[in-house]
Amino acid sequence: MSELRKDPVTGRWVVIATERGKRPTDYASSEQRSESANCPFCEGSEHMTPPEVYAVRDQNTLPDTKGWNIRVVTNKFPALRPEGTLTHERRGIFERLDGIGAHEVIIETTGHFDYIQDRTNESLIRLIDTYRLRLEALMRDDRLMYAQLFKNKGELAGASLSHPHTQIIATPVVPKSVGDALNGSHSYFEAEKRCVFCDIIGEERKSGARIVYENDSFISFCPYASRFPFEMWLAPKRHKSNFISIDSAETAALADCLKITMKKLMASLGDPQYNIVLHTVPNAAAAGEFPVGMDDYYHYHFEIFPKLTKIAGFEWGTGIHINPTPPEDAAKFLQNAEI
Amino acid sequence: MSELRKDPVTGRWVVIATERGKRPTDYASSEQRSESANCPFCEGSEHMTPPEVYAVRDQNTLPDTKGWNIRVVTNKFPALRPEGTLTHERRGIFERLDGIGAHEVIIETTGHFDYIQDRTNESLIRLIDTYRLRLEALMRDDRLMYAQLFKNKGELAGASLSHPHTQIIATPVVPKSVGDALNGSHSYFEAEKRCVFCDIIGEERKSGARIVYENDSFISFCPYASRFPFEMWLAPKRHKSNFISIDSAETAALADCLKITMKKLMASLGDPQYNIVLHTVPNAAAAGEFPVGMDDYYHYHFEIFPKLTKIAGFEWGTGIHINPTPPEDAAKFLQNAEI
Repeated sequence: MSELRKDPVTGRWVVIATERGKRPTDYASSEQRSESANCPFCEGSEHMTPPEVYAVRDQNTLPDTKGWNIRVVTNKFPALRPEGTLTHERRGIFERLDGIGAHEVIIETTGHFDYIQDRTNESLIRLIDTYRLRLEALMRDDRLMYAQLFKNKGELAGASLSHPHTQIIATPVVPKSVGDALNGSHSYFEAEKRCVFCDIIGEERKSGARIVYENDSFISFCPYASRFPFEMWLAPKRHKSNFISIDSAETAALADCLKITMKKLMASLGDPQYNIVLHTVPNAAAAGEFPVGMDDYYHYHFEIFPKLTKIAGFEWGTGIHINPTPPEDAAKFLQNAEI
Repeated sequence: MSELRKDPVTGRWVVIATERGKRPTDYASSEQRSESANCPFCEGSEHMTPPEVYAVRDQNTLPDTKGWNIRVVTNKFPALRPEGTLTHERRGIFERLDGIGAHEVIIETTGHFDYIQDRTNESLIRLIDTYRLRLEALMRDDRLMYAQLFKNKGELAGASLSHPHTQIIATPVVPKSVGDALNGSHSYFEAEKRCVFCDIIGEERKSGARIVYENDSFISFCPYASRFPFEMWLAPKRHKSNFISIDSAETAALADCLKITMKKLMASLGDPQYNIVLHTVPNAAAAGEFPVGMDDYYHYHFEIFPKLTKIAGFEWGTGIHINPTPPEDAAKFLQNAEI
């Protein structure tokens, strides 16, 4: 029999459709990869992107030339731009803001097909450091209320280029879903005097049934109310609300956890398309919109969803996802994956 | 310059990315249609579906045989089932419910490729009547708090069969997004003493810029804060909260509005894949969860979204959609479409 499960953070329900009970082999993966010819993110094509805003590169090399490990550039077709003054307008019942914000692309590696699971830990540590530095830099602009870091891998996940890259879009508003998660965490904290994520991690470690991997500082697991087959969350075991406060030991632990988790995902599902998104606290400038004590009641984490199912009218209408692979089953495949 | 717009009902923001300014011809449509051979929804294949729970059929024909215009059956792989007792369980911090509910399929026509825009008004009136009757029947079960009516057309929209069909999934909880829309409408009503949807319709009729079509009782328009290119809402012009209270004159007007609106969509975009979802009030059994006066502050409507863009990590992380075609541009194409 199928069941409904409630996410303890936001209160959203999901349907775990056990009767459809899909196994990894039921999910066909057929990504169209674009070749490296004409790739604007490959080494030697630096002139094809907007100028670097940041790079990890060899000493004595110039910006926008070869010799880099990681490059950060403005998106060539930015959804939002930093130039201008933020004007808030009301037109009758409608409200609008100019598209002030930022939209950056982090080119993660020079290798066109050099995916996370194949990289060295050092390379991933550099990447996580870059995430931290760019988020920190963007959050110095107090017109920007939230910065969403995300990664699209594969066309179904919204990527138009195969070369590994992450994006950050910083918005002049706190997204409603971010606010919902903050308010949900605050309600739990009010009632229980504990962080809901710390309690989730505690329950997961107690049962073990949904854990994918853990090291000293990080854990990855398939959440109880997974919306998608093989959905995974990665979180620091020590309570921390803001990703940009990550220290170097935690950075190394996150690199290890991310690499092993992605290796297990690939070993289970072949080479799926996926999204990775970071959930962290809004900019300090937005703190006034939420209950005080955000650093106590919120807990940053990454969410990873392979693109295995289609979003249909039911999901659009209700926000309730139908997940045909229970997270316990997904976790078992991931636990047993040989890497 | 792009802009952010706020939906007056739920408060969610969207990015209208005018710089990407996509026209209808920028959206490639490449649906894989399944042929009628072996289609369980074609006439003569009645034995391939679960038994009828309702049908519009010729006199003197038996259930589950030929002679029907519309058939309603239980989904062969139901997400939720009506059998059993609803048990609510807590396991530590986690909450679950048995998968009690209903999952029906409305086979809209005997014609395998007989899409909405090509049908007679009489056929669409029968269909809307069937929607009303099935929703009414399901809402007699007071374990079921909400019934989501939705249509998936095309594989990208989540359909596994090409034969035109609509589905209803009734859930033992009110979905969070339905609750958000109710609470948002209530806040507006509290402040303005008017229905937010009535005010939206008033503004749309005053400006005309986003209207697709209207007749005496129904209007279709591209909403101000459209999440998707060519997103359209269809609503009754007279205030009404509950779809099942639709009368016969309104049913005829909705059939006309739906048909013309879909004809315009096809004339603009070829043959796009799309979802249609109904937004209406929860079952009376759930009324206690929301502020009193739902019939005053809520207003039922249909939402139509062609599947033209991909949902990427940014949308998953924030709930903010990036729409590369402003609704004013989409409405102009739809207004000028020759049908």
